[in-house]
Amino acid sequence: MTNPSLLILPGDGIGPEVMAEVRKVIDWYGAKRGLTFDVSEDLVGGCAYDKHGTPLHDDTMAKAQEVDAVLLGAVGGPKYDALDFSVKPERGLLRLRKEMDLFANLRPAQCFDALADFSSLKKDVVAGLDIMIVRELTSGIYFGEPRGIHKEGNERVGINTQRYTESEIARVARSAFELARKRGNKVCSMEKANVMESGILWRDVVTEVHDAEYPDVELSHMYADAGAMQLCRWPKQFDVIVTDNLFGDLLSDAAAMLTGSLGMLPSASLGAPMENGRPKALYEPVHGSAPDIAGQGKANPIACVLSFAMALRYSFDQGAEADRLEQAVEKVLADGYRTADLLGEEGKEPVSTSQMGDAIVAAL
Amino acid sequence: MTNPSLLILPGDGIGPEVMAEVRKVIDWYGAKRGLTFDVSEDLVGGCAYDKHGTPLHDDTMAKAQEVDAVLLGAVGGPKYDALDFSVKPERGLLRLRKEMDLFANLRPAQCFDALADFSSLKKDVVAGLDIMIVRELTSGIYFGEPRGIHKEGNERVGINTQRYTESEIARVARSAFELARKRGNKVCSMEKANVMESGILWRDVVTEVHDAEYPDVELSHMYADAGAMQLCRWPKQFDVIVTDNLFGDLLSDAAAMLTGSLGMLPSASLGAPMENGRPKALYEPVHGSAPDIAGQGKANPIACVLSFAMALRYSFDQGAEADRLEQAVEKVLADGYRTADLLGEEGKEPVSTSQMGDAIVAAL
Ligand SMILES: CC(C)[C@H](C(=O)O)[C@@H](O)C(=O)O
Ligand SMILES: CC(C)[C@H](C(=O)O)[C@@H](O)C(=O)O
Repeated sequence: MTNPSLLILPGDGIGPEVMAEVRKVIDWYGAKRGLTFDVSEDLVGGCAYDKHGTPLHDDTMAKAQEVDAVLLGAVGGPKYDALDFSVKPERGLLRLRKEMDLFANLRPAQCFDALADFSSLKKDVVAGLDIMIVRELTSGIYFGEPRGIHKEGNERVGINTQRYTESEIARVARSAFELARKRGNKVCSMEKANVMESGILWRDVVTEVHDAEYPDVELSHMYADAGAMQLCRWPKQFDVIVTDNLFGDLLSDAAAMLTGSLGMLPSASLGAPMENGRPKALYEPVHGSAPDIAGQGKANPIACVLSFAMALRYSFDQGAEADRLEQAVEKVLADGYRTADLLGEEGKEPVSTSQMGDAIVAAL
Repeated sequence: MTNPSLLILPGDGIGPEVMAEVRKVIDWYGAKRGLTFDVSEDLVGGCAYDKHGTPLHDDTMAKAQEVDAVLLGAVGGPKYDALDFSVKPERGLLRLRKEMDLFANLRPAQCFDALADFSSLKKDVVAGLDIMIVRELTSGIYFGEPRGIHKEGNERVGINTQRYTESEIARVARSAFELARKRGNKVCSMEKANVMESGILWRDVVTEVHDAEYPDVELSHMYADAGAMQLCRWPKQFDVIVTDNLFGDLLSDAAAMLTGSLGMLPSASLGAPMENGRPKALYEPVHGSAPDIAGQGKANPIACVLSFAMALRYSFDQGAEADRLEQAVEKVLADGYRTADLLGEEGKEPVSTSQMGDAIVAAL
């Protein structure tokens, strides 16, 4: 049997640093648990633009289509701000999502016990929080046509199109209901059906899928603005939230920040099953490329490490090994290891990116 | 000289109850401060649909165009959920905004000292918070064409269009810069220029208006997802935020909730100056129609009262009288008056809607 394959795309900013720690973890699984991956590495984002004049080379795209899973660090940075829209670092990431058809973006918003004090929210509001936001990732206003900036008379006009088909909504709804069954069995769907027809279709299709296929799951609906409020007020009321690409972008980031564990949060972007039964998959931390601290050994590698844990669970059916890795992270936190982002204002000395990685491997 | 005119549209749910308290305040200004308004009242939302089969009758629309300011309570309720999109209560409100061309929606997110403990955020994160969100209100995805649900082959497809012209962006940017000059002199503009061309145009036009007309104001830009995060993390970093219709909907609601003062927050929606120099204007509380508590005397009238204070300030150039009303509200809170929504879980007895209104008038 051949080994499962992983394509690693460290990207820009702190991407390479945090990914180096994930490599240690991957090596540990090969050496100690007989889980050996065929790992290849390539460029995405600004660094790909620097080398190839495009944020994602066609060869890299082709490789991503062939491997069992992609691990991505982060893309972007001020160096690339002035680039034309079509070659911005983000376009590389968006192309991967779109061409791999990774329609279900799983964003756990979890509060780590050791970090509950670190949230801007009161401790009782966030301690023990564990919700899963399922964001549609390959459609909606991110990709709809027509789009662009054109002239009308003397004026420039900027246009984007929110467009959702029934099947696009149905498949991501199924992902949410499936996940809910393994968790708290509750799904809350968010849209703006009071002002957007695409939101009406969203609500209708989610309801139809529910009634026909998942009547056992508890389903509720909320307008996205009320959803933003309720996430801030009492996030524990939610189990799984399902929402569109744009609302999911804002709501999952707000939820991540609320946990106080932003540098800790992974994500999985999943598509349809491939021939070998594994879903097309890309794993990446929720945090960005943090150019301000890049290259200084200050970055927290945990979100990226936990993204690999999600890969173990969702791509390689190694739930027990994923649990092991997550427990190692919890142990390291309980033992007091803190990168700079987890320290707040106190005078404690932070550990470096690589010290954190080593500690996780030791805890394994 | 004729008296300034006010059209009152109490709307649905708790709208009529809270508006009744505002009437007491309006009467007080007439009796004690010689500020007499010609007040008329009419229907909007579900109650207008019940009577006329439309959420806003043409006669009401015409009246709204003629008066100096409109005061609105709230619209909507579960009774109207099954109505066709075109006659939903919200359409009445959206028609007012659109036809009066109320492009600048001012949403202060303030934390009232007496209520700082009531936020889900830690006290030091919100105490003293005072930011102003300026939301574009008459364009973007709320109104863009094409829109609707149609069939493509066997599938339904839902479409909405985000569309912004240069002048639409420029005028709301000006509103934000003008406000900033009277406050902390800082504007942060939020969009998703990394994925949406309409966001690129937004960023470019805001920057152009800034450089040409308001170089003295400090301008920054943030992606809307990062903005949602930063509002949750450390909202005091902001002074004025300017953003589009849809982002403004979510971000202003999240910010309102974070203050812990949701039942307290007013809003002003302003258009271009009329012949008499006053801007077209509609004032309404940020909270909704709260059908679950409607008709029980439990609603908090403060947001609606403070909306009238905004009317005094922005429509009638009565800044000192607006201050007086705001101080009366603060006094009442400091004196311990609390409607049910301001009490949390403790056993204290709440005051009723009308007791709160009476207390405010007494404090005046
Ligand atoms: C980098 C950017 C294009 C991306 C998005 O908007 O989807 C990011 O914010 C995310 O949430 O993954
Ligand atoms: C009632 C609804 C149409 C409205 C909106 O989405 O604008 C409301 O949420 C608001 O923010 O005023």
